[in-house]
Amino acid sequence: MMSSIKRLLIGRPLQSAELGEQKLNKTKALAILSSDALSSVAYGPEQILLVLITVGAAAFWYSIPIAAGVLILLTALILSYRQIIFAYPHGGGAYVVSKENLGVNSGLIAGGSLLVDYILTVAVSVSAGTDAITSAFPALHPYNVFIAIIFVVFLTILNLRGVTESASVLAYPVYLFVAALFLLIAVGLYKIATGQVPPVLHSPVGTPVAGISLFILLRAFASGSSALTGVEAISNAIPNFKHPAPNNAAKTLIAMGSLLAVLFSGIVYLAYYYSIIPNAEVTVVSQIAESVFGRNFMYFFIQGTTALILILAANTGYSAFPLLAVNLAKDKFIPRMFTIRGDRLGYSNGIIILGIASILLIIAFEGQTEHLIPLYAVGVFIPFTLSQTGMIVKWVREKPAGWIPKLMINATGAIISFIVTIMFFLTKFPQIWPVLIFLPIIIYMFHTIRKHYDAVGEQLRLTTCEPSFQIEGNVIIVPVAGMTHVVENSLKYAKSLSPNQILAVYVAFDREEEKRFKEKWKQWQPDVRLVTLHSHYRSIIQPLTKFVDTVEHKAREANYQVTVVIPQFIPKKGWHNILHNQSSLLIKTFLLYKRNVVITTVPYHLKK
Amino acid sequence: MMSSIKRLLIGRPLQSAELGEQKLNKTKALAILSSDALSSVAYGPEQILLVLITVGAAAFWYSIPIAAGVLILLTALILSYRQIIFAYPHGGGAYVVSKENLGVNSGLIAGGSLLVDYILTVAVSVSAGTDAITSAFPALHPYNVFIAIIFVVFLTILNLRGVTESASVLAYPVYLFVAALFLLIAVGLYKIATGQVPPVLHSPVGTPVAGISLFILLRAFASGSSALTGVEAISNAIPNFKHPAPNNAAKTLIAMGSLLAVLFSGIVYLAYYYSIIPNAEVTVVSQIAESVFGRNFMYFFIQGTTALILILAANTGYSAFPLLAVNLAKDKFIPRMFTIRGDRLGYSNGIIILGIASILLIIAFEGQTEHLIPLYAVGVFIPFTLSQTGMIVKWVREKPAGWIPKLMINATGAIISFIVTIMFFLTKFPQIWPVLIFLPIIIYMFHTIRKHYDAVGEQLRLTTCEPSFQIEGNVIIVPVAGMTHVVENSLKYAKSLSPNQILAVYVAFDREEEKRFKEKWKQWQPDVRLVTLHSHYRSIIQPLTKFVDTVEHKAREANYQVTVVIPQFIPKKGWHNILHNQSSLLIKTFLLYKRNVVITTVPYHLKK
Repeated sequence: MMSSIKRLLIGRPLQSAELGEQKLNKTKALAILSSDALSSVAYGPEQILLVLITVGAAAFWYSIPIAAGVLILLTALILSYRQIIFAYPHGGGAYVVSKENLGVNSGLIAGGSLLVDYILTVAVSVSAGTDAITSAFPALHPYNVFIAIIFVVFLTILNLRGVTESASVLAYPVYLFVAALFLLIAVGLYKIATGQVPPVLHSPVGTPVAGISLFILLRAFASGSSALTGVEAISNAIPNFKHPAPNNAAKTLIAMGSLLAVLFSGIVYLAYYYSIIPNAEVTVVSQIAESVFGRNFMYFFIQGTTALILILAANTGYSAFPLLAVNLAKDKFIPRMFTIRGDRLGYSNGIIILGIASILLIIAFEGQTEHLIPLYAVGVFIPFTLSQTGMIVKWVREKPAGWIPKLMINATGAIISFIVTIMFFLTKFPQIWPVLIFLPIIIYMFHTIRKHYDAVGEQLRLTTCEPSFQIEGNVIIVPVAGMTHVVENSLKYAKSLSPNQILAVYVAFDREEEKRFKEKWKQWQPDVRLVTLHSHYRSIIQPLTKFVDTVEHKAREANYQVTVVIPQFIPKKGWHNILHNQSSLLIKTFLLYKRNVVITTVPYHLKK
Repeated sequence: MMSSIKRLLIGRPLQSAELGEQKLNKTKALAILSSDALSSVAYGPEQILLVLITVGAAAFWYSIPIAAGVLILLTALILSYRQIIFAYPHGGGAYVVSKENLGVNSGLIAGGSLLVDYILTVAVSVSAGTDAITSAFPALHPYNVFIAIIFVVFLTILNLRGVTESASVLAYPVYLFVAALFLLIAVGLYKIATGQVPPVLHSPVGTPVAGISLFILLRAFASGSSALTGVEAISNAIPNFKHPAPNNAAKTLIAMGSLLAVLFSGIVYLAYYYSIIPNAEVTVVSQIAESVFGRNFMYFFIQGTTALILILAANTGYSAFPLLAVNLAKDKFIPRMFTIRGDRLGYSNGIIILGIASILLIIAFEGQTEHLIPLYAVGVFIPFTLSQTGMIVKWVREKPAGWIPKLMINATGAIISFIVTIMFFLTKFPQIWPVLIFLPIIIYMFHTIRKHYDAVGEQLRLTTCEPSFQIEGNVIIVPVAGMTHVVENSLKYAKSLSPNQILAVYVAFDREEEKRFKEKWKQWQPDVRLVTLHSHYRSIIQPLTKFVDTVEHKAREANYQVTVVIPQFIPKKGWHNILHNQSSLLIKTFLLYKRNVVITTVPYHLKK
């Protein structure tokens, strides 16, 4: 039954050979990999205005030069990442670049922060999208957390169905959002050009403003830069592109950068020209839409697509997290299970873990994940800085043809990213200090895991010649709980292996019972030796383990191997298991992990 | 480490022979078994007044005759249960009485409602006590649910430590509460007797009241009767008493009944004479304390002990639930695990399940469990009615010496309990309808479980002679994932059992790999036959199962038994397991449950 539910939810399993069909063309890739970056347009300009308003509405004209700064940073990042895509065409992005050029620990810092960041992306975007929906339908407000979880589950299942399928579903809302914003900007500009908007509304660029400081401008710049999160996703996800993957990825990256630049500067300009004042109740985009269209169909269309894109921004996390995890897992820094492809050829463990982790975050913060945004932004700019610096090192070290302009591009990216990172620490320390705690913890975990894998590999390799003793014979211990078909079955099996070395063991709780059992046994199985043990503490494991130890000690002297044969009846239906004390399971696990004995389970299948 | 934490929390394991020391004397038994009943004094009188106030404060004098009615019911119940104790000295209370005299289904109705009721007791009492505490310290209010859960965990651990230990801890607050209320009643009566309280405050008994109706009086009576919940607990817990258990239990029951009668009538009378009006903010007992003592130390002492007794009322559930569960489990209506004594000789599974279930209830109702009270009261009066009726049948059937007065007592108890039950259904149907749904479901579950156990017993019994085939030989399948020490070890073991019938199986994911593996194998293990299987879907289980099926089919024709030997390496530390894909565990479980093959695990213990 389970398997048919699974099939219904995620579809029929795909053959490994069908992997090629699970690659993305540029249109679909743009939709699922850029939803995070594009959705930032819905809140990035607002973040700038929110800082400027602390000085006064007269300072709003500064949003124009600040937006110009963000565009410069965007250009530098897009060009830098384009170079990363060609230099590291197998994906892995910041993690691989930093690891190869700056050393393992830099790689782990980049990889660790991105890993956490993608979890934050999912939690933050879905919560924000849910908020947008429940603001429109206040009756739903008490179910915020529940609705957000439903969305995460939906995205998880969609991604488990495979990358092409999720792209086909998600492409529509992304392009609808882009179209809606283009229309908004076009109509808005048209109204400005035709003089329908009185220019007196806004203070002209260059107006002197009392109280403005470099600190506030930098802070506004850092806030605006949070719109650039998600730019790195494509470089992680190159393996998901159709052949030739690096070229397609690079083109998609340029397309995303251009869209982002147009939408971002359009929104900033309209907000400035229409003199929009940020407001806790209504978003900036929504205010622009109202000024441009009035409260008609277009207004609601823009509101709706914005809510959708916020939720779908989470999907960038779903595309990039599993691929980043594969890279870390291949290097043995996280559990190997992340490298396994699921039924639909996606890295399903990564997808599921991402879903679970973000649901836990949403529950822990009761859906109020806004204050995670700065944490999330700094978690992106750290790897930005590291990867650009890594590229600088690469160019200087390898000096390929035409490396000077390439170096210049990466250097610009590195410097601006570094400044933004520092700005985050200076201006938003109260929200981002946790990064200084969890990054070291994560990196310590990475190293611990790696050390373990190395140790295991070392021990399993056949080249280490440990003296292996020959098994001269077998001693078989059969714990028996009564005289039933189950036990009969196990004894029959034991006899077939080693008829002369069988010890049946019975744990008795009182002397009377012990005596009775012994007598009955003699009649039932006269040829099998029965050992009875006495338990004072109602535990079966304790006396049994002691007995096994004694037998094993003797057996080892004669190079004999001890096998414990466990009779187990298998109920017809799964739920029946809870009706039977799973002492056999406990005994098996305990002996297997704690003692050096072979554990054999002889099943007796019940028919009803 | 786990075992030392366990020892720290619940203490050293006790020998079975120490069971006698885990029995309760009357003083301790009274404390832990009567806390539920006695705590009802804190809210029972209030429940009566809350109904009467719907008519007007002039109706408050009716609380006196209503209380008289409750006292009559109490007397009838105490005397009836005293007879039950002697008639069924092994405990089991309403379940056993109803089952023996009225038939299995009546017993299951009684047992099922009590089982659910004890869970409700724990959830309701702990929530009420927590409310009392957070009312005093409003800063704690947001942590209500959390605090309630902590209390449940505390009570669970205390009870896991054993019944005598929990009784020693819990006796103090119970007796403190009794002493505090006695003092309150004594001082209150003294002030009345010395004329310090103006008698004009209250309407005299007998004043005609407009709007009073039989319905309202019966409703008030039913509400007041909710103070009698918990009276049955002693009859379930007889096995916990020191020898002679029935006599000691009967004496404890009488003591509890007397205490309850004095406290209940005292509080009702003071509330009437001091003309206390129920109020959402301050409880009736608290208002009486304020009138009698003013806001001095005594007032806070009474408040504090009341909060404590409310929480400890939960302990009655902990004492009675596990013993009732043992009775149901012995009759195979619930899983057998409830009959197992834990390290400290308590029925720890019952204690743990009770704790978990009540925590879930508290979380589900977010600590607002008041509206469960009527549900809980009706869940007590159904078994009250059934057990008294059962006793009537018993007396009529057996007619022992002096059976007529005994019959009279039980008949009175049965009739009043039945009337109260009906009253609950008539007056509080909106709160108690769920009982009509979950009782049938529970009883259906009981029967399903019983049917399963009977079917299993039937199949395991050796008298059913199914033709058992002789095992002529063994075929051993060894799934191998590579060429390592782990595999080497397993092959060595397989050779020691049956050197000529070994099949190593390798599942390959592509043809190249398959070829390479085959060649290497020939050099490494030339004497072991290797079968390679090809997997299109990255699954190991699927091709392996198909192969096992083929081999088993052939083996069965020759009366050979198939054994699958699974090489498994055991990491040094438990947490390392998550770093290794537990495919061997999956394969083992799948083959064991789905196919008729013996599963052997050969451990290879890692040293670091």
